[in-house]
Amino acid sequence: MQIAATVPLAGPEDLSLAYTPGVARVCEAIAEDPSLHARYTWVPRTVAVVTDGSAVLGLGNIGPYAAMPVMEGKAVLFKQFGDVDAIPVCLATQDVEEIIETVVRLAPSFGGINLEDISAPRCFEIEDRLKALLDIPVFHDDQHGTAVVVLAALTNALRLTGREPATTRVVVTGAGAAGVAVTRILLAAGLRDIAVVDSRAVLHSSREDMNPVKQALAAQTADLTGRRGSLADVIAGADVLIGVSGGTIPEELVATMADDAIVFALANPIPEVMPEVAHRHARVVATGRSDFPNQINNVLAFPGIFRGTFEAGARAITEPMKLAAAQALADLVGDDLAEAYVIPSAFDDRVGPAVASAVARAAAAGEVTGA
Amino acid sequence: MQIAATVPLAGPEDLSLAYTPGVARVCEAIAEDPSLHARYTWVPRTVAVVTDGSAVLGLGNIGPYAAMPVMEGKAVLFKQFGDVDAIPVCLATQDVEEIIETVVRLAPSFGGINLEDISAPRCFEIEDRLKALLDIPVFHDDQHGTAVVVLAALTNALRLTGREPATTRVVVTGAGAAGVAVTRILLAAGLRDIAVVDSRAVLHSSREDMNPVKQALAAQTADLTGRRGSLADVIAGADVLIGVSGGTIPEELVATMADDAIVFALANPIPEVMPEVAHRHARVVATGRSDFPNQINNVLAFPGIFRGTFEAGARAITEPMKLAAAQALADLVGDDLAEAYVIPSAFDDRVGPAVASAVARAAAAGEVTGA
Repeated sequence: MQIAATVPLAGPEDLSLAYTPGVARVCEAIAEDPSLHARYTWVPRTVAVVTDGSAVLGLGNIGPYAAMPVMEGKAVLFKQFGDVDAIPVCLATQDVEEIIETVVRLAPSFGGINLEDISAPRCFEIEDRLKALLDIPVFHDDQHGTAVVVLAALTNALRLTGREPATTRVVVTGAGAAGVAVTRILLAAGLRDIAVVDSRAVLHSSREDMNPVKQALAAQTADLTGRRGSLADVIAGADVLIGVSGGTIPEELVATMADDAIVFALANPIPEVMPEVAHRHARVVATGRSDFPNQINNVLAFPGIFRGTFEAGARAITEPMKLAAAQALADLVGDDLAEAYVIPSAFDDRVGPAVASAVARAAAAGEVTGA
Repeated sequence: MQIAATVPLAGPEDLSLAYTPGVARVCEAIAEDPSLHARYTWVPRTVAVVTDGSAVLGLGNIGPYAAMPVMEGKAVLFKQFGDVDAIPVCLATQDVEEIIETVVRLAPSFGGINLEDISAPRCFEIEDRLKALLDIPVFHDDQHGTAVVVLAALTNALRLTGREPATTRVVVTGAGAAGVAVTRILLAAGLRDIAVVDSRAVLHSSREDMNPVKQALAAQTADLTGRRGSLADVIAGADVLIGVSGGTIPEELVATMADDAIVFALANPIPEVMPEVAHRHARVVATGRSDFPNQINNVLAFPGIFRGTFEAGARAITEPMKLAAAQALADLVGDDLAEAYVIPSAFDDRVGPAVASAVARAAAAGEVTGA
């Protein structure tokens, strides 16, 4: 990865313009009217990819130095798939307060903040408080990028198997960043019967070992249906299994699901259940891997979401914008819908522009309606 | 300015390598051996250009948003003249403690810190403490970049006018970031008779209105020669005038200098004394402007200095490295030395590589000798 000038400096005149004294006029204009920095600097189209290295891929808490290759890779994907300039920022602190205050101090340099690989439940507080403190979009990709792509794939899988969202039974394994965000977006998309299972049992208000995030999630999921107990208890007869746990799910349990079951086993690099096993009991199978069909890959979402947000000049990435991104992704599959094709490929050139324009439209509509 | 990938992603295999799962192997390797981040990431060749917007060009305290165009321009110059990737970081704080702790937290993302346009005397404390806290090079360009180029030009001007450093009488007007650093590097280069003048008078320990930085500078300059009083008192008979004040110096005062006087009037965009006026009384005249001969431009120094520092893998930019940079710049003029050519042009292609290799050699020599 490298920095490139958009305009070359060929001689002393270019130098006078790009730097002193020419640049002084630009600075003075922005000092008088701060909104002009949107026109004269790269800030409004630049994203900071911020991590503390506490939950990097499946590797865990490997710290800021070892996290850098992931952040660089992310920046390259931002550029290639969304034409968004992204800067990796790996912080030498894992203290929530320090992370928040550091990002607030950095904010004038960026048009958006993409939080990355920060462990749950810290990531929820950091995201919520930064959203309140900053007037630029803040997006935790491990949550919302995953959630958008899962919703897109699930929308098509439900269509293929002739299911209605409101009557579909879903089990989500994992209550970390991805599990929480996936569950929330499914609720926003009209699913009504979701059981979230952490490493111990179904999230349900009868449990006394849950953090506030899990308590809130229980109230919106299994508390409403009365489902409780173990994974075995809730997976029996379920229509959809979404694995975002990093654990393993035995074949015997998958075998108890409903006919035409849908299994998204998203742990990387080892899915909770391998596709060839899942297919014995499920009609639609998706993973996070590029070497199987139906790859649930965040790169389908985040570049276009930020591109569209920037194009709209939006100060936040709202729920309607995320739902619009998922719908745009799902729609790209169109009439080619099949068991092995419920989500487009990351290398489908239509993806970035389609997501960006759907998000920009939703942002504009939200401004008009005050949503 | 924009981000560019050094390697394109052409298909799913490239994606697997650049991002998950391929990148996990790189992360694990760095987690085991942190020194490997030098080989596998862009960190060790990337500079953060950090400002709080408190002293931007001659515009003063215009804040982080309005400072951004200068930092972007600087990043473009880093790339063009040193092939160094630089990221503008404009901070939403002007508190010394907060600036220091923020830069410390950012440090894992960068191979070096270039402080920029931070007002004196805060800049001295920030630089000194960051140098102590970090094991990557910290460089305040308004001080050291200026100092290196001034020393290079003065070295040649002294040669042209047949003067020895140890017996040359120098007056520096301005005791801000540039004035302090210029004075310090001239002392390191063997000049012995320097009088520094701030907006009130010559810095001298008999004054009681000086901050600690000025007190220390007085002890190394006019206290040793006994020179004191006003600018008029010390400029009479002086060989060299270096203006880094932003003020104006009347022609009557310049007229009192020694024969074959040397005048560097570096305020931008309005020099302390205009070149056509200075030339009535001086043999060598330099300014900070590109439309006059002998432009003292920091771009001659900082790209090559960081390039050479990175090539050597040095953890600091030491005094010998800065002196080597100045000598390399001075040497490029060679036999073409003339009144209107005491310093090379910024667009002389030899500058960046010459400075870089001189700095890298000095860094390597310092490691060997323990300097």
